[in-house]
Amino acid sequence: MQRVPLDQLKTELKRVLLKKGFSEERAQLGASLFANSSLDGVSSHGLNRFLPFLNDIDKGIINIKALPEVTKSVGAMEQWDGQLGPGMLNAQLAMNRACELASKHGLGLLAMRNTNHWMRGGSYGWQAAEKGFMGICFSNTKPNMPAWGGIESVIGNNPLIISLPRKNGHIVLDSAQSQFSFGTIENYSKSGKTLPFDGGYNHKNKLTKNPDEIIDTQRSLPAGLWKGSGMAIVLDVIASTLSLGKNTFGIGKQSKDEYGISQIFLAIDPHILGDSEEYEKIIESTITSIKNSTPIKENEEIYYPGERTLKSRIENLKLGVPVDKNIWNTVLEL
Amino acid sequence: MQRVPLDQLKTELKRVLLKKGFSEERAQLGASLFANSSLDGVSSHGLNRFLPFLNDIDKGIINIKALPEVTKSVGAMEQWDGQLGPGMLNAQLAMNRACELASKHGLGLLAMRNTNHWMRGGSYGWQAAEKGFMGICFSNTKPNMPAWGGIESVIGNNPLIISLPRKNGHIVLDSAQSQFSFGTIENYSKSGKTLPFDGGYNHKNKLTKNPDEIIDTQRSLPAGLWKGSGMAIVLDVIASTLSLGKNTFGIGKQSKDEYGISQIFLAIDPHILGDSEEYEKIIESTITSIKNSTPIKENEEIYYPGERTLKSRIENLKLGVPVDKNIWNTVLEL
Repeated sequence: MQRVPLDQLKTELKRVLLKKGFSEERAQLGASLFANSSLDGVSSHGLNRFLPFLNDIDKGIINIKALPEVTKSVGAMEQWDGQLGPGMLNAQLAMNRACELASKHGLGLLAMRNTNHWMRGGSYGWQAAEKGFMGICFSNTKPNMPAWGGIESVIGNNPLIISLPRKNGHIVLDSAQSQFSFGTIENYSKSGKTLPFDGGYNHKNKLTKNPDEIIDTQRSLPAGLWKGSGMAIVLDVIASTLSLGKNTFGIGKQSKDEYGISQIFLAIDPHILGDSEEYEKIIESTITSIKNSTPIKENEEIYYPGERTLKSRIENLKLGVPVDKNIWNTVLEL
Repeated sequence: MQRVPLDQLKTELKRVLLKKGFSEERAQLGASLFANSSLDGVSSHGLNRFLPFLNDIDKGIINIKALPEVTKSVGAMEQWDGQLGPGMLNAQLAMNRACELASKHGLGLLAMRNTNHWMRGGSYGWQAAEKGFMGICFSNTKPNMPAWGGIESVIGNNPLIISLPRKNGHIVLDSAQSQFSFGTIENYSKSGKTLPFDGGYNHKNKLTKNPDEIIDTQRSLPAGLWKGSGMAIVLDVIASTLSLGKNTFGIGKQSKDEYGISQIFLAIDPHILGDSEEYEKIIESTITSIKNSTPIKENEEIYYPGERTLKSRIENLKLGVPVDKNIWNTVLEL
C-alpha cells in the first residue's frame, strides 16, 4: 500500500480521462468521483474501479460523449434517459436535478434508464447531504443473488443509499442488498480467512462462510435473508418501471456485461417543514444515544452510518490517499 | 384455532369499538383494519392486537376522539400532528392524503408526529396499491434492538413497507428491521423450537437461535446485522425530523409504553411517467424470473413480496378467518 496526495490522484485520473476523449469539465468531475471514493476509504469503487471503467469505454459499453436527456417531466417527478453515458456523471447530474426539484416541491424524484454503473453509490448521498438535502438513491444491477429459497441468481444486489444532512457530519447509509459484496468476499479469499458470518451458498445449496465456495457458485446471500431478497425485488421494480428502463432480468439477458441499468434519485428538503435548530437537536439525540451504547467488544466504538467514511476521509486527507501500487503505476503509465 | 366469517369478525369488532365511544365511521374503519390483518394471515397485528389496543385506550395512551391536524404544507410535502389518536386510523388517513398529493405532483410525502402504533404496517401499503399508487411508509418505535456492536437496545425495529400496484396481485414488502419479530420469537418459544437462524443475543452477548434466551435479554438482531442497524437509524431520523416528532430515543424516555411515535407516508403515481402496459410488462418479467427459480427444497415455491398474503386472503375468505379461540371469546363477551 502506498499513499498519494489527493490532488495528485485527481490530476492523474483527469489526465487519463482527457486523453480518453472526455471534455475538460467531465474529466474533472469524473476524476474527482473516483479519487474521492478512494479518499473515503472505498477504493474498491474508486481507483480500483478505474481500469475496468476504461475497459468498458473501450468495449463500447460506456459512451463518454453521451449526455442524459429528460424524456418526461410531471410535477416533482422526472424521467431521464442516460443514453449509456458514464454512470457516475449521469448519477451526479441526476442527484443535482432531484435536489432542484426538491427546492421547488419539497421533494423531487428522478428516474433514469439506460445508464451505467455509478461506481460508489454513496457519492450521491454525500452530494445531496452537502447541498442540505436528504438523498435517497438506488440502482438495479445484473442478476447476482438468488431470490430467497431459490438456486439461480435472478435478483440484483441493488445498492441503496440514504443520506441525511447533519452539521457535525452527515449520516450516509450506503448498502447493497447482499450481506457482503463480492469485493469483500474476494478480499477474505486472498487473505485466506473465512467470513465472520454466512455470505453465500456452496454447491450443496448450503449457506457458507467460506469465501472460495461463494466465489465458485457466484451466489451471494441477501442481507437479512428473505428480507434483503424482498428489498432487492421492490427496488428493482421501482427503478425499472418509473424509468421505463431495464429490470435486473433484462440486464442479465443482454450479455455478461452490465450496462443500460435503471436508477432512482430522490431528494427531500428537510428544512421545508420545520426549523433547522429542532432538526439538528433531534438528530443529535439519536446519534448520542447510539454512540453511548456499551460496545460488546471492549474499546470498540459504535458507529452511525457514514461516521467511518468521514474518519477515513480526514485521515487520508492528512496522510495521503491509500492506493494499490500496481494499479497506481499502471495509471501513471497510461 | 377456529374460523370465523370475515363479516362476523368485522361486525363484532365494530360493535366493541362503538361501545368504546368510536364514531360510526371510525368504528367501521378500525374494525376493518383489524379484521383484514387477520384475514391476510397477520393475526399478530389483527385480532391478537385488539385487546392490547383497547387496553391502551383505557390507559389514556390512545385518544379515540383525536383527529390528526395538518401543521405545515409545502408543495408535495405535508407535516401532520397525529394528536395521539388511534394509530391505524391516522395512518389510513395519512396514506390517502399522500396519494392525493401524488395525484397532483407525481409523488407526495406526509410526515406525522404524535401518532400511535399503526398495527399492521402492510395495511397502508395494500391501501396505496389498491388506489394505483406505489406506497412507501415507515414508522419508528420504542428502542427494542441494540445498534450493531452495542449491548443496550437503543434503536427501533422500525417497520418499512414498500408496495407496488400490479394487475395480477400487488407487490407488498412489509418488513421490520429486526430479523424476527418478538411475536415470532415467542411463537418459537411456545412450541419449544429453536429459530432457523440467529435472532438475537443471549446474556453472554453472543448471537443465538434460542428464543428463550432472546426473550430473556429482549435484544433482537437487526436483519442483515450492521445493515438493518443502519437502516433502523436512518428511518428513525427521517421520520422524526420531517415530522418534528419524537425519535426512538425520545419514545423510550417517556415510559415503558410506546406512544407519540413518528411516521412517514410516501406515495408515487407510477403511471404518470409512462404507459401502463409497459409498466405491467416490466413487473411481469421480474415476477416471472423469480417464480421460475429452481427452489432449494424440492416442491417449495419462490414467493414475491405480498404473494403469500394474497394466498392467505383468498383461502381465509373462503374458509373463514382463523382466530385464537380465547381472544375471540373474550371479544364476544365485551
